[in-house]
Amino acid sequence: MTKKVYLSEDEIPRAWYNIMADMPNLPPPPLHPGTGQPAGPQDLAPIFPMALIEQEVTQERWVPIPDDVLNVYRIWRPSPLVRAERLEQALGAPVKIYFKNEGVSPAGSHKPNTAVPQAYYNKMAGIKRITTETGAGQWGSAISFACNLYGIECKVFMVRISFEQKPYRKLMMQTWGANCVPSPTSETNSGRKILAEDPNSPGSLGIAISEAVEAAVTDPTGQTRYSLGSVLNHVMLHQTVIGLEAKKQMEVFGDYPDVIIGCAGGGSNFAGLAFPFIQDKIEGKQIQIIAAEPTSCPTMTRGPYAYDFGDTVQMTPFLAMYTLGHTFVPAPIHAGGLRYHGMSPLVSQLVRDGLIEPRAYHNLETFRAGVTFARSEGFIPAPETNHALAAVCQVAQQAKEEGKEKTILFNWSGHGLVDLGAYDQYFAGKLTDYVLPDEEIQRALKSIEGFPKP
Amino acid sequence: MTKKVYLSEDEIPRAWYNIMADMPNLPPPPLHPGTGQPAGPQDLAPIFPMALIEQEVTQERWVPIPDDVLNVYRIWRPSPLVRAERLEQALGAPVKIYFKNEGVSPAGSHKPNTAVPQAYYNKMAGIKRITTETGAGQWGSAISFACNLYGIECKVFMVRISFEQKPYRKLMMQTWGANCVPSPTSETNSGRKILAEDPNSPGSLGIAISEAVEAAVTDPTGQTRYSLGSVLNHVMLHQTVIGLEAKKQMEVFGDYPDVIIGCAGGGSNFAGLAFPFIQDKIEGKQIQIIAAEPTSCPTMTRGPYAYDFGDTVQMTPFLAMYTLGHTFVPAPIHAGGLRYHGMSPLVSQLVRDGLIEPRAYHNLETFRAGVTFARSEGFIPAPETNHALAAVCQVAQQAKEEGKEKTILFNWSGHGLVDLGAYDQYFAGKLTDYVLPDEEIQRALKSIEGFPKP
Repeated sequence: MTKKVYLSEDEIPRAWYNIMADMPNLPPPPLHPGTGQPAGPQDLAPIFPMALIEQEVTQERWVPIPDDVLNVYRIWRPSPLVRAERLEQALGAPVKIYFKNEGVSPAGSHKPNTAVPQAYYNKMAGIKRITTETGAGQWGSAISFACNLYGIECKVFMVRISFEQKPYRKLMMQTWGANCVPSPTSETNSGRKILAEDPNSPGSLGIAISEAVEAAVTDPTGQTRYSLGSVLNHVMLHQTVIGLEAKKQMEVFGDYPDVIIGCAGGGSNFAGLAFPFIQDKIEGKQIQIIAAEPTSCPTMTRGPYAYDFGDTVQMTPFLAMYTLGHTFVPAPIHAGGLRYHGMSPLVSQLVRDGLIEPRAYHNLETFRAGVTFARSEGFIPAPETNHALAAVCQVAQQAKEEGKEKTILFNWSGHGLVDLGAYDQYFAGKLTDYVLPDEEIQRALKSIEGFPKP
Repeated sequence: MTKKVYLSEDEIPRAWYNIMADMPNLPPPPLHPGTGQPAGPQDLAPIFPMALIEQEVTQERWVPIPDDVLNVYRIWRPSPLVRAERLEQALGAPVKIYFKNEGVSPAGSHKPNTAVPQAYYNKMAGIKRITTETGAGQWGSAISFACNLYGIECKVFMVRISFEQKPYRKLMMQTWGANCVPSPTSETNSGRKILAEDPNSPGSLGIAISEAVEAAVTDPTGQTRYSLGSVLNHVMLHQTVIGLEAKKQMEVFGDYPDVIIGCAGGGSNFAGLAFPFIQDKIEGKQIQIIAAEPTSCPTMTRGPYAYDFGDTVQMTPFLAMYTLGHTFVPAPIHAGGLRYHGMSPLVSQLVRDGLIEPRAYHNLETFRAGVTFARSEGFIPAPETNHALAAVCQVAQQAKEEGKEKTILFNWSGHGLVDLGAYDQYFAGKLTDYVLPDEEIQRALKSIEGFPKP
């Protein structure tokens, strides 16, 4: 039996898939925070190069991938689609399990899929410097890798708790020539504001985004732009190479999934795998599509759907999304990439329209699932990826109880080799579950009071 | 242009290549330390299962790979052969550079190629527990991964300096269920002897081997065996899957190497790539074969060829090899896998016969080469692999000076994601070069005085 399918390099998709061409309802537009009116390209121009702004709003179904980006994709793409036979045996359920291994990239996750085109379009626009934020460091590593290939200077604001938990991430960025600092910093007004309120702030993605956006827009040379590793439409777009490859690879296996699973923080690895299959679902295919999030940061499962800021210090436009409030600081779980208060507006809309089913998982069950995977399939998953694995285990268990056969496809979004400190704490019994108290949801509702309604 | 070639899973070699069938002179046999007579299978039986002892001595050209081992190989094999176009551009020399990426295994190096069959043959022999040593941790990770798949308990003695430099390695082993301790320990007579002489001993591979062998042979249940990750003939044999795949992949590229390069500590990743090409060389092909070692542990370039012990406390048979003396404790460079006093008897013999050219490289030039690679090809190499890269840069530079075109193939033996502390020290200017003083060579000669001569 075949264990894994690679495609040849000339089977890397030549265009990204844009779900806006097919979704039943488009998400409400982003709003300018000052006027409350839809934000136009000119509002975003100080933040992003025009090519990315166009990709943010286009409704064309297929967006061509530039040759130069394809050329870089070939460093690690197509990524393998793998039959997890050993995991199936370990779970003892009537399921076939496939996973797309996005851990094979130089940065170790799916993030370079969008980091490379973002660096490319900035380079084409003459930009010399990119600022960004990172949670667990997957995104910071990826954009450092990409900026290095295009000769762009890179500055990364890394959420402090993750900076401390994952020291090797900073070293990866440094090896690729980038500068990584723990956020909040005293380098920006945003950072100083947070530090004044809480000098020991563990940081959050929302805070780090504020710092990175501020550092970009206040550069007097005008040659700095900001780069975001998730949430926005153009990021989801770039990630669809994952699902497009996976569809071809499932064909080679002669199979098709009943269930698609990805973990979701801002939504990008999940969307990358799921969107091309959601196209099939919209056309009538029966597929269950599960987005797995942590119970400590249950954006889709418990947050309201509302207009909210993408960052803590209110520098971004209003985005229509599930949100725990822009001031929310999640518990310091190790799955730093899932510690974001909001969710991709595209993913949020598809949840509202019943095409995606969000589920939340406890911290300990995610590590249990991750260790089960490492001890059967060998590769050690990232703590974020462990949330997808918890969902896989849950679906398998249910199939077992119901005596139903299921074919599961999930996104193995990244490896955990630089997150091993988390596993150490797990084995030492130092990790706990954390369920967000109801008061936090009430606080979230309060924080968005008076904002426009989607 | 194709960037990388995968083979299909049914193109994984079905047999390992045994160079003893073709080499002009066989290495002198291992000798029993007590009698000075050739060590027979019965001498090795307390240490290794009989299937591996047979592979140690067989002169059959092809040794079949068991189906179950092939089945596990499919988790990561065939590994890709990659054209390093971006590195070529960075070096600006008239060279084509290919590398075999052995970093794609779950443990991140070539080591599982032999860990898996070793665990398999021990399992078939009814062995319940394996002890081993590890330097940088690549081998310890690999055998932990393999033992876990076969349900064998695993105990790893890790050279203390590496244990401290590379904390994540222990955590990988733990994730796969193994027990890793810093060597020298006070658990064995060997360890206690070393600690009595130097309570702050940084450890060495020679010491860790002594501890692991002792822990195996003194187990009263008789169900423990020792496992070695390099040096011995059966280990070189298992690693030849690398070169066998690479030959097929070079054919797909329509190319053939002028120069083959690998780093060499005990010799296994080097031999794995080189031996199948040395077969061609013996048959008349013009190929330069370079084994790269550190100037701080210059076994082949400066050590005598002699009978010596494989371990510090004289528990192993005498092996005929290049050696810096069994009591040698190398400087604590980060390329822990290259900190071994001896060298594979097969590799040593081929050096003597002029089929392999050893070269030594300075610490700083290896990191410079590694960073050049990471910033061109993206992937971050292990410090050991950086020695191969230093040789690649040297050969490229020479080709440039001579205006000669060259095709280079090297073994990218592993990634450096759990060795990032070494890069940190390199960037911080804390690493230095270290050339072994002549007195150390004199001491080596003295330590083997009175031993049998090969």
